[in-house]
Amino acid sequence: MENTTENIFANNPALLNAIQGRLGSLVGRPSGYIESLPAEVKRRINALKNIQSEQLKYEKEYRAELAELEKKYLKKYQPLFEKRSSIVNGNVEPTDAECEREDSDMDEDVEEKVEEKKEEKPSADPVKGIPEFWLTCLKTNPIISELITERDEEPLKALTDIKLEYLDDSDGFKLSFFFDKNEYFPDTVLTKIYRLENTGDYGNIIDGKAEGCDIHWNEGKNLTVTVETKKQRRKGTNQTRIIKRTIPAETFFSFFNPPVIPEDEALEMDEDEMQELDSKLEADYEVGEIIKDKIIPYAVDWFTGKALEFEEADFDSDEYDGYDDEEDDDDDDDDDDADNAKINEPAAQTPECKQQ
Amino acid sequence: MENTTENIFANNPALLNAIQGRLGSLVGRPSGYIESLPAEVKRRINALKNIQSEQLKYEKEYRAELAELEKKYLKKYQPLFEKRSSIVNGNVEPTDAECEREDSDMDEDVEEKVEEKKEEKPSADPVKGIPEFWLTCLKTNPIISELITERDEEPLKALTDIKLEYLDDSDGFKLSFFFDKNEYFPDTVLTKIYRLENTGDYGNIIDGKAEGCDIHWNEGKNLTVTVETKKQRRKGTNQTRIIKRTIPAETFFSFFNPPVIPEDEALEMDEDEMQELDSKLEADYEVGEIIKDKIIPYAVDWFTGKALEFEEADFDSDEYDGYDDEEDDDDDDDDDDADNAKINEPAAQTPECKQQ
Repeated sequence: MENTTENIFANNPALLNAIQGRLGSLVGRPSGYIESLPAEVKRRINALKNIQSEQLKYEKEYRAELAELEKKYLKKYQPLFEKRSSIVNGNVEPTDAECEREDSDMDEDVEEKVEEKKEEKPSADPVKGIPEFWLTCLKTNPIISELITERDEEPLKALTDIKLEYLDDSDGFKLSFFFDKNEYFPDTVLTKIYRLENTGDYGNIIDGKAEGCDIHWNEGKNLTVTVETKKQRRKGTNQTRIIKRTIPAETFFSFFNPPVIPEDEALEMDEDEMQELDSKLEADYEVGEIIKDKIIPYAVDWFTGKALEFEEADFDSDEYDGYDDEEDDDDDDDDDDADNAKINEPAAQTPECKQQ
Repeated sequence: MENTTENIFANNPALLNAIQGRLGSLVGRPSGYIESLPAEVKRRINALKNIQSEQLKYEKEYRAELAELEKKYLKKYQPLFEKRSSIVNGNVEPTDAECEREDSDMDEDVEEKVEEKKEEKPSADPVKGIPEFWLTCLKTNPIISELITERDEEPLKALTDIKLEYLDDSDGFKLSFFFDKNEYFPDTVLTKIYRLENTGDYGNIIDGKAEGCDIHWNEGKNLTVTVETKKQRRKGTNQTRIIKRTIPAETFFSFFNPPVIPEDEALEMDEDEMQELDSKLEADYEVGEIIKDKIIPYAVDWFTGKALEFEEADFDSDEYDGYDDEEDDDDDDDDDDADNAKINEPAAQTPECKQQ
């Protein structure tokens, strides 16, 4: 009965509408079971369908109330997020009282270490705020870290905050990435909007659309392409010219240029093209969802790596190469060690602490 | 920020507590990154942790409000579910008005067929209610159908309703399976309870416990075992005796005897044993969740097979053998057909309509 934006795309293809027409002929009725039923049973099934339609009206109300609840609590979290941001960016120095940890039962280890060094003096050349905070958070998440290339790190060091807002005019949410001055683009905020639309027919089936934003890359700094230079010689003469070709490059910033569902052409796409687009849409939404539900609310746990403890099972099962180890109880200790190394990887990649 | 019971086990191992101690040494700190930070940065991180603790208090309130919301709407759905049940079990015959479909845009195909046969006369020997309704619903779901053996079908034909309740004394829910008289057990209701407990530390991290119930199998009807008979000959003499051995058998009814997390022994389990238990717990919760979130609210769509249209993407990606076809755009049409056949399977298995 639950219906949240969580896992919506994971469970339901955004291409639903386009696919549905085709699927109609594939699933649900191949057995001719329903058609074979006696007339008196068929009319009872229709009665059940009508009952379910009534239920769906209530579900719509439920979703509206749930959206209100989410907005209400986001408002409560907001001042805390702002306080966090001002500490991260060095605009506010927390008081000693604000830095004293009370409920330390969950992170005793770290606590002890801090305790030991309590008398530690501040550096001679003190650091402002918490450098590379958001880059570290993003890189600690196993799924997002895969999207961040080495070239992406420099501009992402300038990321000062990520904010969540719910949309007013429709279901969905907006993520805003705030940037300090940097060499890559003059934009101070990059946004990604996910509009979610409930088709109102089967629980959490939702049709979604992602909107990115333009990034005004500085000359020669566009990370979404690499430039290939080629020398060309004219036939007959000895004249040469240099030809530059831009090739799309992998970058985290393609997050702001999400895949698009073609309106009419979808019907002309073949099964493979649809599946490819579908998995791209899913992956894009997954990243948005991770940022909304995991990174933004629990940023400090991503920064310290603590969040990974809770991710382990997920990571383990998702990142595998497809071999099912459910019933695998032989003594492959070596393999286990390899897995552990894999889990550690993102944390091990956290950048050194450099002064900005 | 969202926190529902959906996918809780999928994302978070129920073994969390047991595993955590071990993981502590594996993740989060291998790089020594946090320790390497200057003292002034470390105290700011503590301030962020305190801010997050405040936020978690609000989240607890949020979850309580969400639970109330869910209960409120389940109450609204209840009369509709009861009406459905009385039609399914033939206790009430719906009126003509109740059987007339208005919003037929989503299932035109089926509608037309029904339209054609509108004048169809009721069978000479009319059927009571909708026979094998719940068995068909369960068998249409790809994940649950895998748990239902041929031997399970007979008793599951006697399944008259599945009801959801939220627990009053803790987070979680109870599923009640109601049975008509049958040859297998005298129990009229079998129950499964999922107690969920929020550890209150990282969003939707939850520790869960499933409770089944005893099934009082009639003599020789216990589906959870098969009996093996063996002739034994006494050495020296020619005396033989017949030895019966019961061997655990696969059955849907083991759903009522869920895996248990050993209290203290968990710490003595090795990595493989823990992983095996973990995936069993996950699988058990997944089934409970499917019944709660999909089967109960949308039973008629499972009966007709319509629900499969919305499941397709999910099924496709989950049920694969691990080969990633994301970038696979060559012309393997034959494979595609094979996949489709797979999708159709559960529906094709729907039983013929027999009178009960």
